[in-house]
Amino acid sequence: MFSKARILCPVLKQKVMSAEAAAALIPAGANVGMSGFTGAGYPKAVPNALAERIKEHNTQIDPNTGEKPFRINVWTGASTAPELDGKLAEVDGIEMRLPFQSDPICRDRINTGKMNYVDLHLSEVAPYAWSGFFGNMDVAVIEVVGIREDGSLIPSSSLGNNKVWIEQADKIILEVNYKQNARLEGMHDVYYGTALPPNRKPIMLTDPAQRIGEAYLRCDTDKVIAVVETNSPDRNSPFKPSDEVSKRIAEHILAFFEDEIKRGRLPAELLPLQSGVGNIPNAVLEALDSGPYKNLTSYTEVIQDGMLKMLKSGTLAMASATAFSLSPEGIEEFDKNIEFYRNKILLRPQDISNHPEIARRLGVIAMNGLIEADIYGNVNSTHIMGSRMMNGIGGSGDFARNGYLSIFMSPSTAKGGSISAIVPMVSHVDHTEHDVKIIVTEQGLADLRGLSPRQRALEIIDKCAHPDFKEQLRDYFERACASGRGMHTPHLLNEALSWHQRFEETGSMLA
Amino acid sequence: MFSKARILCPVLKQKVMSAEAAAALIPAGANVGMSGFTGAGYPKAVPNALAERIKEHNTQIDPNTGEKPFRINVWTGASTAPELDGKLAEVDGIEMRLPFQSDPICRDRINTGKMNYVDLHLSEVAPYAWSGFFGNMDVAVIEVVGIREDGSLIPSSSLGNNKVWIEQADKIILEVNYKQNARLEGMHDVYYGTALPPNRKPIMLTDPAQRIGEAYLRCDTDKVIAVVETNSPDRNSPFKPSDEVSKRIAEHILAFFEDEIKRGRLPAELLPLQSGVGNIPNAVLEALDSGPYKNLTSYTEVIQDGMLKMLKSGTLAMASATAFSLSPEGIEEFDKNIEFYRNKILLRPQDISNHPEIARRLGVIAMNGLIEADIYGNVNSTHIMGSRMMNGIGGSGDFARNGYLSIFMSPSTAKGGSISAIVPMVSHVDHTEHDVKIIVTEQGLADLRGLSPRQRALEIIDKCAHPDFKEQLRDYFERACASGRGMHTPHLLNEALSWHQRFEETGSMLA
Ligand SMILES: CC(C)(COP(=O)(O)OP(=O)(O)OC[C@H]1O[C@@H](n2cnc3c(N)ncnc32)[C@H](O)[C@@H]1OP(=O)(O)O)[C@@H](O)C(=O)NCCC(=O)NCCS
Ligand SMILES: CC(C)(COP(=O)(O)OP(=O)(O)OC[C@H]1O[C@@H](n2cnc3c(N)ncnc32)[C@H](O)[C@@H]1OP(=O)(O)O)[C@@H](O)C(=O)NCCC(=O)NCCS
Repeated sequence: MFSKARILCPVLKQKVMSAEAAAALIPAGANVGMSGFTGAGYPKAVPNALAERIKEHNTQIDPNTGEKPFRINVWTGASTAPELDGKLAEVDGIEMRLPFQSDPICRDRINTGKMNYVDLHLSEVAPYAWSGFFGNMDVAVIEVVGIREDGSLIPSSSLGNNKVWIEQADKIILEVNYKQNARLEGMHDVYYGTALPPNRKPIMLTDPAQRIGEAYLRCDTDKVIAVVETNSPDRNSPFKPSDEVSKRIAEHILAFFEDEIKRGRLPAELLPLQSGVGNIPNAVLEALDSGPYKNLTSYTEVIQDGMLKMLKSGTLAMASATAFSLSPEGIEEFDKNIEFYRNKILLRPQDISNHPEIARRLGVIAMNGLIEADIYGNVNSTHIMGSRMMNGIGGSGDFARNGYLSIFMSPSTAKGGSISAIVPMVSHVDHTEHDVKIIVTEQGLADLRGLSPRQRALEIIDKCAHPDFKEQLRDYFERACASGRGMHTPHLLNEALSWHQRFEETGSMLA
Repeated sequence: MFSKARILCPVLKQKVMSAEAAAALIPAGANVGMSGFTGAGYPKAVPNALAERIKEHNTQIDPNTGEKPFRINVWTGASTAPELDGKLAEVDGIEMRLPFQSDPICRDRINTGKMNYVDLHLSEVAPYAWSGFFGNMDVAVIEVVGIREDGSLIPSSSLGNNKVWIEQADKIILEVNYKQNARLEGMHDVYYGTALPPNRKPIMLTDPAQRIGEAYLRCDTDKVIAVVETNSPDRNSPFKPSDEVSKRIAEHILAFFEDEIKRGRLPAELLPLQSGVGNIPNAVLEALDSGPYKNLTSYTEVIQDGMLKMLKSGTLAMASATAFSLSPEGIEEFDKNIEFYRNKILLRPQDISNHPEIARRLGVIAMNGLIEADIYGNVNSTHIMGSRMMNGIGGSGDFARNGYLSIFMSPSTAKGGSISAIVPMVSHVDHTEHDVKIIVTEQGLADLRGLSPRQRALEIIDKCAHPDFKEQLRDYFERACASGRGMHTPHLLNEALSWHQRFEETGSMLA
């Protein structure tokens, strides 16, 4: 098919085959570990071929025999792309999915009860898989940039859980993607010092720029059952310029940083930044880039367009992550100037990029999105109206719980102003009142550190709520306080979730 | 008053005074850091004298002048005792309390809105205080066993946040308690390697038995404004023998451990045990002690009676904690055989006993109580009916989030069977679905690892719910699934909290 130019290992050269032939080696019911993190470095051909096979198989099932449909369990790093999650979900080929997804078809299957979704802290997937908590991994399907003579692998545009899948799987299928820049070689830092307790050792990382591992993935070539050559780009979403709301949120955060520096609670170079993906995080990065900052660092999950710009301008000295998440223009910029970026970016396995030990030690500033927050500071990052899954908790809990500052941000309303992001009681909790330090909307920033729940309520309503909902929130809070049900976290149980009910009944949370 | 026999430092000998004189040095509005953790090592005299002063002052306030009452903010390690929390709360002398309490008068003040309570992860108090997140500490009041010639301090029966308070406070008051066993000297391990980011280093602890610090608390004698001599025992609650329900819970946990060992997911010596205080944890310790286990270790917050017995029998090789929490008989046993126990117990500062880095590395087995859990695995440890504070989250989040296994346990019902500990939706979340691995009641054990929310619901209802509530829970779950609102975490918003409402209206959650 291709040249085998990137497959230098003689044994593995022998195992090159078509995606269809490789997909035929994955049995029904298998636990399959796939590469892929935020639309980067996922296998491009085998999942698609497998989906075709599944479709064909399942349409031929005679409903009278009771034969079970062909399905697999899909474990990844994080979200992938339509070629993987979308294709497999479309043919109802996924029985169970972990630990994160953001695919519209997957989401539909999850929310209609056709797929089990196990939504996990991203740092915990590797150790729990190692501990055997999820069962045995049958097959790993991993995209790489190339295979070296000794069988070791040049990782692709994401590392995610690849190291663990390769170690744990009984059998391995490799996809060598010629579209990925060969100069990614050397940008990875694969740490081989992890172990199960009682044999764990300190992880000696004290600086985001520090290397503690190897540039390649070790691989037992005996376990490799197929090598497939591909030539497809990562599916990246185009970059949207910041809107007004995002810019205002960014301004509030910048003003907060400035004030913290003045009070001596943050150093002038801040602390390593972790930042979720999306419009608002990108606006924060842009704002930082046009501010007075120099030599910042990031210790995060993904490298976005904004970070490339910050590296170029010198605002950011270096970025540590587990994956890229660039727009097509971002990719172009990266490929063109890869020699500049190569020694300023390090990709690590996700159990290291998100490790609680490191997040705590480095004192990461965690900045993540929220779906809704309540007046007492509990945050819902995952569920729409308490029941429907949006994406998943991802790494937000890893960083929010153990970082130096946890910042959660969102527009103050959704769906054209009919939904308030600040509600009396969140319909689901991903980050508890104990873990949320700062909440920001375009309206303002609430600093919750050292406040009791009632004090937080006043701060959040005052600073973050949209004017359309402020009075309604105050009214709830005051009546809850007056109810005599308990003044630590005053609530009216029959009204706590009534805003969500009202939205479902009338299309608006407005009373 | 006493002999000054335990005050070897000449300068500090000069500063001995009465508790009343010392209490007079604490100004109204002060942030006061007190020693004390689970009823051990709290100051016995100064808080009481201060309470008297506050009472006298506040009764003399002319209500027409608008003069503010005398109040202070009280920061401790964890819960203290009636002589501290009780006395100060009784005179309404506490404006704000952090990070944990379990005192009935305090609780009443919190729940009637007379006291602000900031309920924090215990591991985070020290770093956040250092970071300046709670403001400046004016005075520290610390119980010690003795003062050495160079002014360094022999810590008492708890370490808690003492190191930080002594470092951070502008002024220090010491209470030297002659009732505390002088042979506590040498049982502490005070780690002086912590720092604020970006200067944090790995904490090189890899074994619960390992020493990484010093036996004494450093103290700047210039900051000491008073030394008070006392002779009072820690106020300890008597030991209750395990009841049937606790024994059944312990049996389920023991059977689970055995099975995990068989499956190769736990070593024969288990992993370091963390265990909350109370009836059920003690029953688990007793059960372990009568099982086949040898050379277990514990990495926990408090040493309870059960641990002394396990040390004696050899079931436990050593115990690391931050405080004692012994019954009067436990204290007697400890004092009588202190030479046996001395080198088998280490007390550490609570930021080290509960440190996420260490809990993760050692792979702690976290066993803590719950007030209620919902069918999807969210746990409420703190709030009664969503609004009233019971105690606080304590260290449960430190261990549950970062340990190897998080086990939450409770009788399946409360208040004579009228309350189900398993509910459709918890009225407050302290431990999210992402953090809860195992739930146990006397009915059985639910293993939630690798399950989606709907799978968890079936497991929890089947294994943990009381028979009186099983059908009612199944009915809720089935109707929620049928509602079409979303199948990831099916809920009926208008009924999710109805069990709590029903209890408040009728005195029972039974439909
Ligand atoms: C919370 C999260 C969904 C916000 O995403 P975002 O893209 O920044 O925010 P948006 O405002 O565009 O909202 C996304 C969608 O949710 C909807 N939404 C937002 N708030 C809502 C609410 N309170 N109720 C209902 N819908 C809401 C929006 O309308 C939008 O829907 P649409 O796609 O149909 O238009 C996202 O940050 C996330 O998945 N977080 C969890 C994982 C995480 O934190 N990862 C980062 C660190 S690893
Ligand atoms: C959750 C917690 C309160 C359970 O305490 P416990 O003493 O083991 O449990 P009990 O069953 O005796 O319950 C304590 C009280 O709560 C009440 N209670 C328990 N469940 C209840 C529920 N679902 N609704 C209302 N009341 C409830 C009990 O009736 C009892 O009340 P009483 O004192 O008036 O009789 C306790 O473990 C705690 O405070 N946990 C949080 C901190 C923590 O985990 N620390 C340990 C690690 S650091």
